[in-house]
Amino acid sequence: MAFKIIGVVGSSNAEPDILRLAEDVGSEIAKRGAAVVCGGMTGVMEAACRGARKEGGLTIGIIPSDKKGDANQFVQIPIVTGMGTGRNVMLVKTADVIIAVGGEFGTLSEIAHALNIGKRVIGLRTWKLERAHNKRIPNLIEVDTPKEAVDLALQSISAQT
Amino acid sequence: MAFKIIGVVGSSNAEPDILRLAEDVGSEIAKRGAAVVCGGMTGVMEAACRGARKEGGLTIGIIPSDKKGDANQFVQIPIVTGMGTGRNVMLVKTADVIIAVGGEFGTLSEIAHALNIGKRVIGLRTWKLERAHNKRIPNLIEVDTPKEAVDLALQSISAQT
Amino acid sequence: MAFKIIGVVGSSNAEPDILRLAEDVGSEIAKRGAAVVCGGMTGVMEAACRGARKEGGLTIGIIPSDKKGDANQFVQIPIVTGMGTGRNVMLVKTADVIIAVGGEFGTLSEIAHALNIGKRVIGLRTWKLERAHNKRIPNLIEVDTPKEAVDLALQSISAQT
Amino acid sequence: MAFKIIGVVGSSNAEPDILRLAEDVGSEIAKRGAAVVCGGMTGVMEAACRGARKEGGLTIGIIPSDKKGDANQFVQIPIVTGMGTGRNVMLVKTADVIIAVGGEFGTLSEIAHALNIGKRVIGLRTWKLERAHNKRIPNLIEVDTPKEAVDLALQSISAQT
Repeated sequence: MAFKIIGVVGSSNAEPDILRLAEDVGSEIAKRGAAVVCGGMTGVMEAACRGARKEGGLTIGIIPSDKKGDANQFVQIPIVTGMGTGRNVMLVKTADVIIAVGGEFGTLSEIAHALNIGKRVIGLRTWKLERAHNKRIPNLIEVDTPKEAVDLALQSISAQT
Repeated sequence: MAFKIIGVVGSSNAEPDILRLAEDVGSEIAKRGAAVVCGGMTGVMEAACRGARKEGGLTIGIIPSDKKGDANQFVQIPIVTGMGTGRNVMLVKTADVIIAVGGEFGTLSEIAHALNIGKRVIGLRTWKLERAHNKRIPNLIEVDTPKEAVDLALQSISAQT
Repeated sequence: MAFKIIGVVGSSNAEPDILRLAEDVGSEIAKRGAAVVCGGMTGVMEAACRGARKEGGLTIGIIPSDKKGDANQFVQIPIVTGMGTGRNVMLVKTADVIIAVGGEFGTLSEIAHALNIGKRVIGLRTWKLERAHNKRIPNLIEVDTPKEAVDLALQSISAQT
Repeated sequence: MAFKIIGVVGSSNAEPDILRLAEDVGSEIAKRGAAVVCGGMTGVMEAACRGARKEGGLTIGIIPSDKKGDANQFVQIPIVTGMGTGRNVMLVKTADVIIAVGGEFGTLSEIAHALNIGKRVIGLRTWKLERAHNKRIPNLIEVDTPKEAVDLALQSISAQT
């Protein structure tokens, strides 16, 4: 049986309150027995892995460079792509559902890829999107706490199967 | 000498007024001697290539599938990636500057990738982005006409070199 | 700490004696506490994962399609690339060392990628390579048994660190 | 109508006689009105582009880095992948047929990818492959001169359509 895999996306360089949210998201994921997949680098990615490892969870980092050692120290399974930012697409495809915490343009690209392939994104203080003609975006849902984010993520996975 | 290459991004399934804009963008690019790069498929991509070919311009399509024949008929140089939506990242890297015409989530991912790597995006009836804390996004500029879009695109390329 | 990760490459459609070798390679890897990474599909890939799971080992499948469900049932961590055969390159980069079991042209491409980036390949009934001018290929080593292959693989990893 | 596109693969660091062959291959391709696609860097890639440009031919370089300026000066259309050696797969998919001139392991990976997807490879002083059980490899054909290589390449393209 394959693991449930929850993607955590966010900036490599984030403020302390955003990092605390990301770490709590990682911990909540691990407590429920799911794995974290992220971009494997610093910032939100490292915080989510640290949180997951504190609870004994499994951490996967899909890293942009050619060097396994570039992954943060809390990544147990570094997937070495050598594809630079092109790896963002794979991260999104690999996750069953995405939690976006804060975020800059790289995060926005991951949110957009997810929505493009019909994958749900749960946001914590992340991008708000406005489409022309105010069409709604039902797959992008903002929540307030890490616990709510992970609860909703697991519900989304259950609904898929 | 390498060609000046302008990326045109937008939906594979767009309304007639958006397609007309895209075709005019393609024609304007060709008239100035630059090449069009796009995703090579239908909709905005096909319209931009059609417009460029009408003026004798060069058209490059970076296609998602494994089959050269999947490119639209106005693509002269199909780059066959077999990478699905992962090819969007390469399109953005290959273009000197991006013109976004209308667009759905795939287009949003391309806009985000471009902004993420510091590449300018010129929009025609495309996504408006709102960041947390209302930070400005100076590299995303909305214009009103295909001619303005291509004028600004060429100025952006000149400023780079 | 990151797992030790051993790549197992071979054909999706192999004969019974090749599949038995692959399954034993998977089991030997798991017994030593390393993880298996493979292409995630049928044949040698499935046999290696089955062998690893029998011994409680961790299995990672880097799959070519866009669908997690395409991985074989013994893959615990499907990495969904949507890149078709382009995923072979990532598999090679992700593995600390490669064991090639039998194999057709896809396997040859993986052997070549590994040698190209200086990664050791241990072969069990796989390709023999002849370079012009008979230059030796010290990083491609043929062995006779799964146990020898995995022993040598782990020695290669230890020598790297 | 899409261009006929012939891939030229070989080492970034080759001896003078190999470079001369590659340059002549590029010239022969251009004389017949086809485009050259290559990896866009130095050595065989640069020689093939130089040869093609001498005859006014079109040159496409699918480059590994994120920087357009890394392409050799004879590349007219740099496709910027940021995928490192992962770009080799795309080069093979983009070419209608491959001509391999000399070559190291990167070239071998390209030959293998081509054979894996049923694409013909024409060799000039390149790898000889020996499969287990001496099965023949009908899609890998060694010739003696650039002219023969390009003649055969164009015949292969005609036979496809």
